[in-house]
Amino acid sequence: MPIPAEAFFLPPGTAGTLQSRIRSMVVQGVLAGRLRPGDKMPSSRGLAVHLGVSRITVTLAYADLVSSDYLSARGRSGYFVSDTAPRAPEFPSAPARDEGVDFAALTGARFSKQARLAKPEDWERYPFPFIYGQADPALFDHQNWRACALRALGRRDFAALTSDYYERDDPMLIEQVLRSILPRRGIAARADEVLLTMGAQNALWIAAQVLLGPGKRAVMENPGYPGLRAILEPSGTEVLAVDVDENGLPPERVPAGVDVVFTTASHQCPTNATMPVARRVALLEAASRQGFVIVEDDYEFEMSYLKPVAPALKSLDREGRVVYAGSFSKSVFPGLRLGYLVASPSFIAEARALRAMVLRHPPGHIQRTVAYFLADGHYDALINRMRVAFRRRRQVMEEALAEQGLNMAGQGGFGGSSIWMRASDGVDTETLAAQLRAEGVLIEPGRAFFHPGRASRQHYRLAYSSIAASRIPEGIARIAQALGRMH
Amino acid sequence: MPIPAEAFFLPPGTAGTLQSRIRSMVVQGVLAGRLRPGDKMPSSRGLAVHLGVSRITVTLAYADLVSSDYLSARGRSGYFVSDTAPRAPEFPSAPARDEGVDFAALTGARFSKQARLAKPEDWERYPFPFIYGQADPALFDHQNWRACALRALGRRDFAALTSDYYERDDPMLIEQVLRSILPRRGIAARADEVLLTMGAQNALWIAAQVLLGPGKRAVMENPGYPGLRAILEPSGTEVLAVDVDENGLPPERVPAGVDVVFTTASHQCPTNATMPVARRVALLEAASRQGFVIVEDDYEFEMSYLKPVAPALKSLDREGRVVYAGSFSKSVFPGLRLGYLVASPSFIAEARALRAMVLRHPPGHIQRTVAYFLADGHYDALINRMRVAFRRRRQVMEEALAEQGLNMAGQGGFGGSSIWMRASDGVDTETLAAQLRAEGVLIEPGRAFFHPGRASRQHYRLAYSSIAASRIPEGIARIAQALGRMH
Repeated sequence: MPIPAEAFFLPPGTAGTLQSRIRSMVVQGVLAGRLRPGDKMPSSRGLAVHLGVSRITVTLAYADLVSSDYLSARGRSGYFVSDTAPRAPEFPSAPARDEGVDFAALTGARFSKQARLAKPEDWERYPFPFIYGQADPALFDHQNWRACALRALGRRDFAALTSDYYERDDPMLIEQVLRSILPRRGIAARADEVLLTMGAQNALWIAAQVLLGPGKRAVMENPGYPGLRAILEPSGTEVLAVDVDENGLPPERVPAGVDVVFTTASHQCPTNATMPVARRVALLEAASRQGFVIVEDDYEFEMSYLKPVAPALKSLDREGRVVYAGSFSKSVFPGLRLGYLVASPSFIAEARALRAMVLRHPPGHIQRTVAYFLADGHYDALINRMRVAFRRRRQVMEEALAEQGLNMAGQGGFGGSSIWMRASDGVDTETLAAQLRAEGVLIEPGRAFFHPGRASRQHYRLAYSSIAASRIPEGIARIAQALGRMH
Repeated sequence: MPIPAEAFFLPPGTAGTLQSRIRSMVVQGVLAGRLRPGDKMPSSRGLAVHLGVSRITVTLAYADLVSSDYLSARGRSGYFVSDTAPRAPEFPSAPARDEGVDFAALTGARFSKQARLAKPEDWERYPFPFIYGQADPALFDHQNWRACALRALGRRDFAALTSDYYERDDPMLIEQVLRSILPRRGIAARADEVLLTMGAQNALWIAAQVLLGPGKRAVMENPGYPGLRAILEPSGTEVLAVDVDENGLPPERVPAGVDVVFTTASHQCPTNATMPVARRVALLEAASRQGFVIVEDDYEFEMSYLKPVAPALKSLDREGRVVYAGSFSKSVFPGLRLGYLVASPSFIAEARALRAMVLRHPPGHIQRTVAYFLADGHYDALINRMRVAFRRRRQVMEEALAEQGLNMAGQGGFGGSSIWMRASDGVDTETLAAQLRAEGVLIEPGRAFFHPGRASRQHYRLAYSSIAASRIPEGIARIAQALGRMH
């Protein structure tokens, strides 16, 4: 059947070049069954006239469709829908289901009931987003990231991109982590001491699964990272919250008989306290004496732009008692989902088997792209740019907070990308956050960081990783005004 | 300090353009501390002469290094290492550790002790690789994959690429799954009934974690997928193995009191049996009567090139009792790590919370690339090309097996990419595989597919997804010869 040119139209508002839109239009027709094998296509001239595009555009689109077997060319007779064109088999749709099974009741909702830090999906539309851990497109090195991703898509890298790596990771990225990243933390490691993960969250989860479970006891910092509590609670582990002070986790408060201590030694989450070296040594001595393992979450070490970064706990570890978790998600962007664990080979072997069971491995293309980004120095250039921007924003933050008379609760002497705040007695920062949201300001109420039994509603966190310096003074002023209204 | 051109050399054997190699050379020097802030670089002319490259190449590399702040240009004075150049802080390396903790003993090696299908890392070097599930670079549509990945790297997609999607997936990919993939299986679903996963393995793992655990009972097909057994064993679930017949899993053999039944209804793994529709209906009725949930692993439905594909169990599901797991890893490539779960909203909510806890989400760039690959019809064209190639290889396989008198044990009437084989009584296929490997032939011994208590060493699997048709006759002949020698 010859199809008239009039049967075709370019759907308005679709993205892409004219050629790719013509191609899509034909593909959708074939897959939907509107165009059937053997149907004769309009001539390229006829379709070009009808669509109001140049003939060469249609000819190129047709040629592309022939090469992927949607169309076939029959010499002077023109183009036809290919006899072997792809098609989508059709089944009658299933009627609506009755939902005979209530899975929330069946499973006890043990995962979905965990508290999480929530942010609006459209946070980018808010003029004053003091939220944590999102990428800033203004700082990201888009061009070089794209170049590295392209190189990783080359034919030469096809094996690295497509293979199942059950037992190992991309050797190129492992080499970069060993040679370029870990030495900055004072850590000398071998390849069998490193495992790539789907970001820091996945690294912490793997560590907890390997080391903990029913009957085990773990220490969490209080306040601490809510994502860790969400991991530990459903695992059956008994969670003991130990209050931090201005130097982070006090080793002498770790109770006897615990199996694992989780700590953010270099930049306590959320107070930003940095643990002094003497306390690090004391914590390692306690670990050795009491027989516990330390999981060190070193999530933001690159952002130490005010003081030199302190060596990681792992770099002082003589007995293989420290499991170190790092991430590229904060420094590159969170959607990347790439991090790593560094620990004894006997731990890594267990973690690797668990990872293979759960998800096999992080996608090969992502691993290779990051390897190139590191090897070519773009990573260091990006970190440098972020440090300069964050230092500037930090300065503006501190000036604005002082001007408005708001209280910083955390030390934050190393830098970082957030400030831990304390409102006046009696202020509920969840109410505050809701009010500010209506005024275009996003802040993070502090309750989710605390152990449920000892929650403070008086604290909140202000991050400056996703807000321009020029917006900060007005945003802080709005917070101060809202706080003023609450008295 | 002026650095002489002679201090620079391009390390031999490095990849990339001359310009990028010059850039890397300088970056490594700066990061290693050999080139210090304020050092004067050789003139572009001098370095070009020394390296034997054109001056414009050096000039372009220098310009690039200035833009990423490794160098600064001081007018006519030339180029200097930038005062604010990135650098890698140096710590003394930690001495070798004593490994004071034996993590294998501490954890009971509960993950690493699980059996897995092993293949040599360098399987591609073997001339006759009858192994399963790896991508064939000869069939893959590299060019269009690259084009889609590039589009997904555009600035417009930056938000999709970089954001943390805790609560949802890439809407563009979800739409493609709903509109283009699931209808082929007869499944009509809404967005809140779909969750993207890190491949089928991750989908099965998530389903098992949500539904099972200590005190629960699950049915596995025997023989069945070893990756599933590796998931269930460490979870504390009681695993009941039910023998399959030539029509797959017999519903009447599902014992009372089980919580979940795992099935590969459309193409039983590894026998390739297809469950007839009447038996599918009977299985669903048993599920409703006995109150169990069915997890349907529909891992290879696109490869039904000999018979029309049967509608999925999920398409017949009236009560929301079926949890459906699908994957792009077989049809695109396994290193992609992308799959999906389709189930009741109350199940998906639980699974989404678990996924957020474990790994957050599959990387945004991968999701968007697949969305474009689907939307532009490249996916269907690829599937079509694979079906044509596999049909041809299958024919060659069957002819070669008949000529050599080898026994097919599985039905495999729908197509697929492997054949389930039975050797003569008394043959140990693990010994056979080891002998064949020395002759360049890789086969998969069957033992890992069976319940440990009822293992057969007589079976083996021959896959033809990664071997050219022209290699098949010789490979099968070598297997027949090796079998002949074992009598």
